[in-house]
Amino acid sequence: MRVSELVAATGVPLATVKYYLREGLLMPGEASSATHAEYGEEHVRRLALVKALAGMGLPLGKIRTIVGLVDRPADTVFETIGRALAALPPYSDAGPTGEHPRARAVLERLGQVYEPSYPVVAQLERALAAAEDVGIPMTDERLDVYARHVRGIAEIDLELMPTDTPESAVEYAVLGTVIYEPVLAALRRLAHQDIGAARFAGRTFDDFTDPDRQDES
Amino acid sequence: MRVSELVAATGVPLATVKYYLREGLLMPGEASSATHAEYGEEHVRRLALVKALAGMGLPLGKIRTIVGLVDRPADTVFETIGRALAALPPYSDAGPTGEHPRARAVLERLGQVYEPSYPVVAQLERALAAAEDVGIPMTDERLDVYARHVRGIAEIDLELMPTDTPESAVEYAVLGTVIYEPVLAALRRLAHQDIGAARFAGRTFDDFTDPDRQDES
Repeated sequence: MRVSELVAATGVPLATVKYYLREGLLMPGEASSATHAEYGEEHVRRLALVKALAGMGLPLGKIRTIVGLVDRPADTVFETIGRALAALPPYSDAGPTGEHPRARAVLERLGQVYEPSYPVVAQLERALAAAEDVGIPMTDERLDVYARHVRGIAEIDLELMPTDTPESAVEYAVLGTVIYEPVLAALRRLAHQDIGAARFAGRTFDDFTDPDRQDES
Repeated sequence: MRVSELVAATGVPLATVKYYLREGLLMPGEASSATHAEYGEEHVRRLALVKALAGMGLPLGKIRTIVGLVDRPADTVFETIGRALAALPPYSDAGPTGEHPRARAVLERLGQVYEPSYPVVAQLERALAAAEDVGIPMTDERLDVYARHVRGIAEIDLELMPTDTPESAVEYAVLGTVIYEPVLAALRRLAHQDIGAARFAGRTFDDFTDPDRQDES
């Protein structure tokens, strides 16, 4: 297809397509004459990926890292996907120098393998520190329940991962990780609502502070 | 304590304390003379809540809604907490007018009670639409596993909720909802890493596309 058809097929404006070509985020088309190039399905797919990542606010350098891994995978599936996921937000202002004591304690309790230099470890540390700051620190009781259920979620994520090509595996890993985080957050809030509706039906705060009612419950 | 001691105890600057007093986010101290007021533990606690909410980027009006519900709870626990949670981000640009067909289909499949006007329904709709846009739409298979595990997480959240006072219940509900979302997101990414390390140990992409290796796995 012509570049104008590529624009129509993807909804990415021509100026943006040209920009992505210049920046190497989109592979060149096949020259069909001195002034025209032909584009195919791989270009449509690549634009969809770049558009999705740009739409999430990823800076150009991070998008370049991800598409680079799609085109030139590392030696193993695990390393390729690990490096691609490490390019995802949230980004820490601080370098990867911290000790991350809270995150390390959690991961050691869970007995999980992890790569200490990946930003997700710093992300966990910050989130745990924030919970501490507001007076609801992570407890072992909460952690063990969270970890068991999060593992169940992560297992279906990996089961549904396509492995036919590096492109599809890396795309799925990157997009599935970030795209489903807000879905899961919304589902948790809605589960609170559903469980709360049953548990607190018609109850006032006085019911809780009245010892007679507490004994009944 | 004097206001200077309140500043020292909370780390909230004097100008900010005065601003919160003027805006009604912090209740006045007890006048001890024409020019001095005394503050207590309730002021320390309130400042910690307002500081945490402001630190998450909540606009003043939303913080006012939440502290208003702490001070003047609605008739029931459920309504009080529901209204407080509805003041949390993410905020939609669009009004609460949409049909939210994807969110409604999900909630009907799960058989959950929900309040259609709360922003979390629009939040789920946007997140599901984004998953569709990038080519990994929510399937029943994924949804059922997600929902089961999210429910387990939401159940421990509600079990750990203090109900001794409206203050502590509303504070816990509001802060626990938002503060633990990034913890859960980080735990999911780390679970991917741990499961992936075992599942893809040393495997190359060629292993997956080679039919002999696929049969073995």
